[in-house]
Amino acid sequence: MDNIYIGGVGSTTFGQHPNRTAVDLAVEASLNAIEDANVELDKIGTIYLGNFVSGVLTGQEVLAGLVADKLGISGVPATKVEGACASGGIAFRHACMAVASGSCEAALAVGVEKMSHAKTSLVTEALNCALDHEVDAASGLTYPGLFALVWQAHANKYGTTRADVSAVVKKNRGNGLINPLASMGADLSDDEINQSALIADPLTLFDCCPISDGASAVVVTRKGSGSFSGASHPVRVLASAQASGRARLSAHSDLCSFKATKTAASQAFDMSGLKPSDIDLVELHDCFSIAEIVDSEDLGFMKKGHGGGWASEGRTKICGDLPINPSGGLEAKGHPVGATGLGQIYEVVEQLRGRHPNQVQNANIGLTHNLGGTGVSCTVNILSAVS
Amino acid sequence: MDNIYIGGVGSTTFGQHPNRTAVDLAVEASLNAIEDANVELDKIGTIYLGNFVSGVLTGQEVLAGLVADKLGISGVPATKVEGACASGGIAFRHACMAVASGSCEAALAVGVEKMSHAKTSLVTEALNCALDHEVDAASGLTYPGLFALVWQAHANKYGTTRADVSAVVKKNRGNGLINPLASMGADLSDDEINQSALIADPLTLFDCCPISDGASAVVVTRKGSGSFSGASHPVRVLASAQASGRARLSAHSDLCSFKATKTAASQAFDMSGLKPSDIDLVELHDCFSIAEIVDSEDLGFMKKGHGGGWASEGRTKICGDLPINPSGGLEAKGHPVGATGLGQIYEVVEQLRGRHPNQVQNANIGLTHNLGGTGVSCTVNILSAVS
Repeated sequence: MDNIYIGGVGSTTFGQHPNRTAVDLAVEASLNAIEDANVELDKIGTIYLGNFVSGVLTGQEVLAGLVADKLGISGVPATKVEGACASGGIAFRHACMAVASGSCEAALAVGVEKMSHAKTSLVTEALNCALDHEVDAASGLTYPGLFALVWQAHANKYGTTRADVSAVVKKNRGNGLINPLASMGADLSDDEINQSALIADPLTLFDCCPISDGASAVVVTRKGSGSFSGASHPVRVLASAQASGRARLSAHSDLCSFKATKTAASQAFDMSGLKPSDIDLVELHDCFSIAEIVDSEDLGFMKKGHGGGWASEGRTKICGDLPINPSGGLEAKGHPVGATGLGQIYEVVEQLRGRHPNQVQNANIGLTHNLGGTGVSCTVNILSAVS
Repeated sequence: MDNIYIGGVGSTTFGQHPNRTAVDLAVEASLNAIEDANVELDKIGTIYLGNFVSGVLTGQEVLAGLVADKLGISGVPATKVEGACASGGIAFRHACMAVASGSCEAALAVGVEKMSHAKTSLVTEALNCALDHEVDAASGLTYPGLFALVWQAHANKYGTTRADVSAVVKKNRGNGLINPLASMGADLSDDEINQSALIADPLTLFDCCPISDGASAVVVTRKGSGSFSGASHPVRVLASAQASGRARLSAHSDLCSFKATKTAASQAFDMSGLKPSDIDLVELHDCFSIAEIVDSEDLGFMKKGHGGGWASEGRTKICGDLPINPSGGLEAKGHPVGATGLGQIYEVVEQLRGRHPNQVQNANIGLTHNLGGTGVSCTVNILSAVS
């Protein structure tokens, strides 16, 4: 991954976009990223589009080709990639690989999902496409149910409490208040969290990320190329790793950990030559509040079982030892599935450029973590500011 | 694409597999390819899975991760790629790129679709996911309707007749009789074709490929690697090209041609240093009989407007100047969408190894062509026998 840079980023707000199609949203984010990168359209040699359930929820596939067409660069290879909730991260990795291979000067990674128009029952059915239907889906489990089991296991094994998990919720919803891209920022009390509707014991409504529409995009380029020279605030890609893991819950040796996260993180740290303590900020996959605790441990930022303590002690706040999800994360931004991995990169890039509304002080190295399904796929990226 | 080889291929039959899931079918084809390549599982560093509408028709996504898991190589990057009917070809190209990049010794490309369990109306709805919903789908068009328009335009412009198109149908259905993977081989007369049900004027039932289940897989490897040395009949990849094109019919300047085919073919010929007359046999995307005529012209094998004549003169038969679809093509094999592009590669590899049931004499260079939607995506591969 030598010499690979992010030239520009773009994003729609995450939330409800009732009058816009997935193509519209993806084109908006893409144009923003292309403008930010100051790259000529004909320099973009390929498009990777991360999307999970556009076919099921909107009846529209071939999104990559349609977006290429609307951008006016029809002809370039245009590929949708899917790995459930990690689809956006997978799109980014493939854009990096395309530029690294020398096959093009610049590559566009864009992620999109359009969900809020559909009934909740249909959205649940769509999200269940990421379950292993031979076992987990057949048993009647859904994602809230699965992450409720993860929480119960974590609580039993490490003593993680409602207060620990609520600290994550309060932090992320609070961070979201300041982020103009976030749809669900809120100043919540413990009582409000406790008293919100029980979704799957112990998860309440505020433990769950909202159903959302949105798109995010990134232009990847190479130092020395014409497309690089236009970028005014490039960010360097030190590592982009992707791993698969076992989908079915019964195949996980430990419900408190996702192996795909550990594999991808280990590869990303190896690739970059860095260690967890070198990371200044993290955007990670808090699809449910408990996931932030599990993910932060799996990424190696603290010992297993200590994630809850870090949250309740405020160590993961913007001013803490390791700011986690200063954007508000999936909890406060929303989770337009295919867009999420690229939305995380958008946030970290703005942090490393020093111009994020929730700016982390001395942010030089950032990490993003995008997890699919019950750990069936994962991407981890490590990005660096350019001095 | 220097030094890239196909070590092994595998395929299920194409047809109806009522008691098997998409994962089952993909795993069967993958295991066949892995055995054929004589490669150790731990040499396979990544999986690309081509699939179009598994979410819509079966409720199961994350197929790449599930297949990796069942194969016992969970952990490797596992990515579903989608470009409508060209999804299988896109998977193959990405497996080639992964091996070419040096990131792994061997890569698995597998394509799969499971369709025959669903009602025809639902299958039509699923296939319509490849239409541009802003225009074509909104107008009520379906794929048979769109290819009927293509036929009418071709007939008006070049005088292509029912007899020309029937020659394609009779050849492909006849070739399918000998191919054990083909579900719909038949010895058809002109009368039978003319008298079969009218689907979309002038397309009759026998002009349309059947709704099918199936999976095909290819192991890609690199010369000099351990995984290569095990392969007993490797086939060399001279070129693998992918292009996008405009989906909506109104954006096509000429209804008798698909620009994505021309772009991908031009790139593949440039990459390989070959020209159309160097090709010994072709497997191309005859989703409808008229498509074979259009595609063969777009690939440059004859002048525009001469494809019908070549068919009716028998020049595209197995013993003709340029054998097209000696496998029986999509018409006779079936079209399990995500599998089709890899099924074509399976057929050409067996031809280049000299062991196809419909063996083409002196088959040294073969070409595959996989077209998505109304030309929104296309892949063209050129493969060579190894002496």
